[in-house]
Amino acid sequence: MIQGHTWIFPNPPAIIASSAVGGPFEAQGPLADDFDLLHEDLWLGQDSFEKAEKKLLEQACERSIDKAGMKKEDIQFFLAGDLMNQVISSSFTARTLAIPYLGLFSACSTTVEGLALGSLIVSTGYAQRVLTGTSSHNAAAEKQYRYPTEYGSQKPPTAQWTVTGAGTAVIAPEGSNIRITSATIGRIVDMGIQDPFNMGAAMAPAAVDTIEAHFRDLRCSPTEYDLILTGDLGRIGHQTATDLLNKHGVSLPKDRFGDCGLMIYREDQPVLSGASGAGCCACVTYGHILNRMRKGELNKVLIVATGALLSPLSYQQKESIPCIAHAVSIKYEGGKEGS
Amino acid sequence: MIQGHTWIFPNPPAIIASSAVGGPFEAQGPLADDFDLLHEDLWLGQDSFEKAEKKLLEQACERSIDKAGMKKEDIQFFLAGDLMNQVISSSFTARTLAIPYLGLFSACSTTVEGLALGSLIVSTGYAQRVLTGTSSHNAAAEKQYRYPTEYGSQKPPTAQWTVTGAGTAVIAPEGSNIRITSATIGRIVDMGIQDPFNMGAAMAPAAVDTIEAHFRDLRCSPTEYDLILTGDLGRIGHQTATDLLNKHGVSLPKDRFGDCGLMIYREDQPVLSGASGAGCCACVTYGHILNRMRKGELNKVLIVATGALLSPLSYQQKESIPCIAHAVSIKYEGGKEGS
Repeated sequence: MIQGHTWIFPNPPAIIASSAVGGPFEAQGPLADDFDLLHEDLWLGQDSFEKAEKKLLEQACERSIDKAGMKKEDIQFFLAGDLMNQVISSSFTARTLAIPYLGLFSACSTTVEGLALGSLIVSTGYAQRVLTGTSSHNAAAEKQYRYPTEYGSQKPPTAQWTVTGAGTAVIAPEGSNIRITSATIGRIVDMGIQDPFNMGAAMAPAAVDTIEAHFRDLRCSPTEYDLILTGDLGRIGHQTATDLLNKHGVSLPKDRFGDCGLMIYREDQPVLSGASGAGCCACVTYGHILNRMRKGELNKVLIVATGALLSPLSYQQKESIPCIAHAVSIKYEGGKEGS
Repeated sequence: MIQGHTWIFPNPPAIIASSAVGGPFEAQGPLADDFDLLHEDLWLGQDSFEKAEKKLLEQACERSIDKAGMKKEDIQFFLAGDLMNQVISSSFTARTLAIPYLGLFSACSTTVEGLALGSLIVSTGYAQRVLTGTSSHNAAAEKQYRYPTEYGSQKPPTAQWTVTGAGTAVIAPEGSNIRITSATIGRIVDMGIQDPFNMGAAMAPAAVDTIEAHFRDLRCSPTEYDLILTGDLGRIGHQTATDLLNKHGVSLPKDRFGDCGLMIYREDQPVLSGASGAGCCACVTYGHILNRMRKGELNKVLIVATGALLSPLSYQQKESIPCIAHAVSIKYEGGKEGS
């Protein structure tokens, strides 16, 4: 069923397992306990940061499949994407899995694009077991988008820190009380910002556009959610989004409007305006948030993953940053998971 | 409905409009008449090849929307991807369209990934009007994957020529006699080939894997199809695929087993082993093949788009080439289109 840009699932599919794998910097953060695996070595024993990122995603896939009590052969489709050129982290992970694979790209909003499409496929009976996920690696992203970290180049205070991490989930028709009830697909919003060191501000209007579309399409109010969580706007983007929503007459209580990019690191970790990267929303959602839902601390959450769809080349060619946000609403149906 | 890796659509969605836009080299090819628009200028009046590629895709989108008798506001979702880093051709086109956008990446098999997902979304009632498409640009791809064309570097005879072109289609529940009846989602097949100048050979086993999965899942024989058309294996890959199929006991008559990469250029155009690029399968399918179906020359076609999911970086890091192929079966239900 569709209303506006929003898919509503009359048979809401379940997230039957999820996992998050992180790096050494994430291990120092306040959500460390919500990771399934944390690596002390940023290289994960690999000979390149790109191969380390693939390893993160492979391990997050393994963990989720294992937690679902399945083998990889049981999974019918793998929906994934990442920030690397030609989404190699996902494609090479798909090679390891040898599962039919649908490659996605929506930068840091890929987590929710995969969850939305995977939910649609499962909800309509076109699969019974879908694996979806994404990843990012701080040093691989810095090297590709900006400068190799070895250069030690400085950044302005508006910049965000790319998460080293991967998050994945297994979606099935039944098997858990955590359900995807709807998904709002975003459109590109580009306010003309050209500064790749201020992506939070660039992405905030896209997040607001999708949040407003979601409530308009479902004719519901923000108070229905215990938490509305944007992907990774960071400090500046979160403030911009709050201001924009206020201006449009939408007031979200402070304790119910958060941002993944402000949760994964401690205040005193040197991450400037906060965290970002495809792995940020994936790890926070598939680790921390779903754990809180499983404990009954949150019943209904709207995850609004944001993506800055620039490339280093489009920036060099003086293009502005096209931004997008996709949202999924996740509902905990009470009782212990699986009961 | 799902069987194996194959989605079967009980309400097969219709391709209600399609279009192909090409460059000067495509204008010299045997399929020139099947393009909606051919450019004499490889730059399309833009100041970079990347912006020229975006223009190709924008024009192919405009044409298809126009042919469907719609405005861009009527389209509910845009599913697209391309070969550029961070799929910028598609993302920037999505900015122009301002339609909810799902970014995809499956290299040269993106055409069919988009058509498969778009068909599923329409067939299940989660949209009534979906636009899908992809693009490539010879000089932009050479610059990114190999060397800027200005260097005049030479290539081995196994190399393929990236098509400058974009192809798009509008999918709807009704409105045409051209229907998508099923889609087979491929998995990664990697036979260890590392040579980016021999992608046809690398992709052939993936094409064979998906063709065999399709017939196994549907319990049907290749004779059901008037034409089985691979994405862009080129001369060497097509021969390899034929040999592999023969080895597995599947014999396809020569006149019913073709390759888009062997159709779009004339024998005497200097394209070495044939054509490739995401725009190749898109232009041949959405231009030439659908035109032949509309004329009643072909009734049932299996399009098997192939993708080499490498990046320049994965090649430099001595990785082999992970390949994939996705297939859709397209049926012409007789009578004049729309009648």
